[in-house]
Amino acid sequence: MKRRDFLTAAGAGVAASTAVAMPAIAQSAPEVKWRCTSSFPKSLDTIYGAAELMSKTVAEATDGKFQIQVFAAGEIVPGLQALDATQNKTVEMCHSASYYYVGKDPTFGLGTAIPFSLNTRQTNAWFLYGNGLTLLNDFYKKYGVSMLPGGNTGGQMGGWFRKEIKTVADLQGLKMRIAGMGGQVMAKLGVVPQQLAGGDIYPALEKGTIDAAEWVGPYDDERLGLYKVAQYYYYPGWWEGCAALNFFFNLEELEKLPKSYRAALTAACARANESMLASYDAKNPIAIQSLVKSGTQLRRYPNDVLDAAYKAAHSLYDEISAKNPEFKKIWEDVKVFRNNGYLWWQIVEFTYDDYMVRARARG
Amino acid sequence: MKRRDFLTAAGAGVAASTAVAMPAIAQSAPEVKWRCTSSFPKSLDTIYGAAELMSKTVAEATDGKFQIQVFAAGEIVPGLQALDATQNKTVEMCHSASYYYVGKDPTFGLGTAIPFSLNTRQTNAWFLYGNGLTLLNDFYKKYGVSMLPGGNTGGQMGGWFRKEIKTVADLQGLKMRIAGMGGQVMAKLGVVPQQLAGGDIYPALEKGTIDAAEWVGPYDDERLGLYKVAQYYYYPGWWEGCAALNFFFNLEELEKLPKSYRAALTAACARANESMLASYDAKNPIAIQSLVKSGTQLRRYPNDVLDAAYKAAHSLYDEISAKNPEFKKIWEDVKVFRNNGYLWWQIVEFTYDDYMVRARARG
Repeated sequence: MKRRDFLTAAGAGVAASTAVAMPAIAQSAPEVKWRCTSSFPKSLDTIYGAAELMSKTVAEATDGKFQIQVFAAGEIVPGLQALDATQNKTVEMCHSASYYYVGKDPTFGLGTAIPFSLNTRQTNAWFLYGNGLTLLNDFYKKYGVSMLPGGNTGGQMGGWFRKEIKTVADLQGLKMRIAGMGGQVMAKLGVVPQQLAGGDIYPALEKGTIDAAEWVGPYDDERLGLYKVAQYYYYPGWWEGCAALNFFFNLEELEKLPKSYRAALTAACARANESMLASYDAKNPIAIQSLVKSGTQLRRYPNDVLDAAYKAAHSLYDEISAKNPEFKKIWEDVKVFRNNGYLWWQIVEFTYDDYMVRARARG
Repeated sequence: MKRRDFLTAAGAGVAASTAVAMPAIAQSAPEVKWRCTSSFPKSLDTIYGAAELMSKTVAEATDGKFQIQVFAAGEIVPGLQALDATQNKTVEMCHSASYYYVGKDPTFGLGTAIPFSLNTRQTNAWFLYGNGLTLLNDFYKKYGVSMLPGGNTGGQMGGWFRKEIKTVADLQGLKMRIAGMGGQVMAKLGVVPQQLAGGDIYPALEKGTIDAAEWVGPYDDERLGLYKVAQYYYYPGWWEGCAALNFFFNLEELEKLPKSYRAALTAACARANESMLASYDAKNPIAIQSLVKSGTQLRRYPNDVLDAAYKAAHSLYDEISAKNPEFKKIWEDVKVFRNNGYLWWQIVEFTYDDYMVRARARG
């Protein structure tokens, strides 16, 4: 299995033919300025910081010749228009989450997270050494963009509830802030999904306009203060066994880059991808303890909720697949990777973690 | 928590002062040739390939100006002399495993793996956003080198046995190919550890010169053919909940690099670090199924073996700590990170994986 070299392979021909018309020095180190619009506010510092690390790394590796300026959501376009802005060349690239665009096509969900899918390491493996990036970039081509992994939150929490959930029946009629396919599955379980921006969650939960809300995980959720207005914090976030963020590049702009800048960009994205996960994995263990000290009650989703959600998710995938061959093709590939992946995962990783979790509990 | 910028921070002053004496163009893009000796043979293609990916990325990002040639174990120096060769400037850098050098100082073990320590994601988090790289690089300074993560195998298997191990007593007098601290802990359990190079394991196991052997995991073990000469394949490899490979750089050579080359090198190492793990995570699920089809019997280590090993490992750490303040200082830091890490791990990651493992089994 060979690692896929997406950025270095794409458009190599274009750069080579351009080089003929330009002096060697100008070709190897032209001044290039790009703009990267983020779908995220600066307050989501771990996610936003990954785009900044990408930008800083590219600038340093090219002696300041290739500058990518990062803009927070709303500075150029609203967060959820980052992909469109990249497609229409308002910006050359963006840092976003593919699943924000499931309204265009549910296939976008597969680039970030869909319920009961791959965990974090499996997702990176599928992207880089499975068929992930090949299949997804074939799909993204229709939107004039290509994608590289842009960080991962790791497994997310399952949201804040003002009342305990003891069975599926307790979900009936609950108004919950939850987006995308997680929301569609929750709707099949009786929840009324609500779409709210991050800053609007706290007041809505405080006033009781909504009964529950999911955001990210301990570190980001603590900063939103959600523990002050909802006591029960559920896990696992079965709709986001991990959430892969994405760098999207306008294909034509990408092809204009000298080969060395594309290589620097590819490496910088890999560094950002690795860094975001490591950062969350260092911050969340501290934040969860701080939340519990503030009175947060941790609750595991009851088995009947998990089972009902698993069934509802897979029936949703069947419904989508019946109408959308592109989704079907990629989802079938994910399923094979998931089956093989979890067969292996249960052997070493799971038994090692199982032992270590118990050893810690014994003290 | 700020990401540590080891290579870009180190020696920035030296590069700046050098720049004064050189024309701008020469400073920004001098021809630099480095040699990287690997501790591994090319046959360990996933590990060896990470050094090649690092080299390729650096070359591409610098327009071929900074070339790092990778040499397999034995081509310049034997695999276990890679660190010494880097220290004494035979080469500028190496790709190795810190724990190969526990004979110099057991503190080296903490840079790769010691029994019952952090899992893969926790290790990366400790390196990059915990105190890991700061503490380790402070220690490595005595050897004239600094380190960046150079890939990870993920959790390893617990080795091949010709007879079943049903209790600690079954380990008495067994000759097992197992190196480093895992071997020291096994010795406390009655095993007679043997040191053998990869290529010598198969014939020794075939002839019965040894009774058991550990290597890496399904993908690499299958290629060595160990399943043909030992039937029982144990898990988890409790002495390597993960194994971090390492890039070591001669400090003086590193400081001579222009800032942009250091940045390209840092990003290329991050890319290699991410890539090796993803590659193993894609290959091992296939290889484990192939091994089982060939008649391999999977066995989980009995609880009494795991408990005895856990106790023996921690008493070994106490013994070392009593004599070695540097080991003690770093191990104490790892322990805090491990306790916080597993407290969090058991909440989302573990329960999500638990559910997914069971869902897969149900079909």
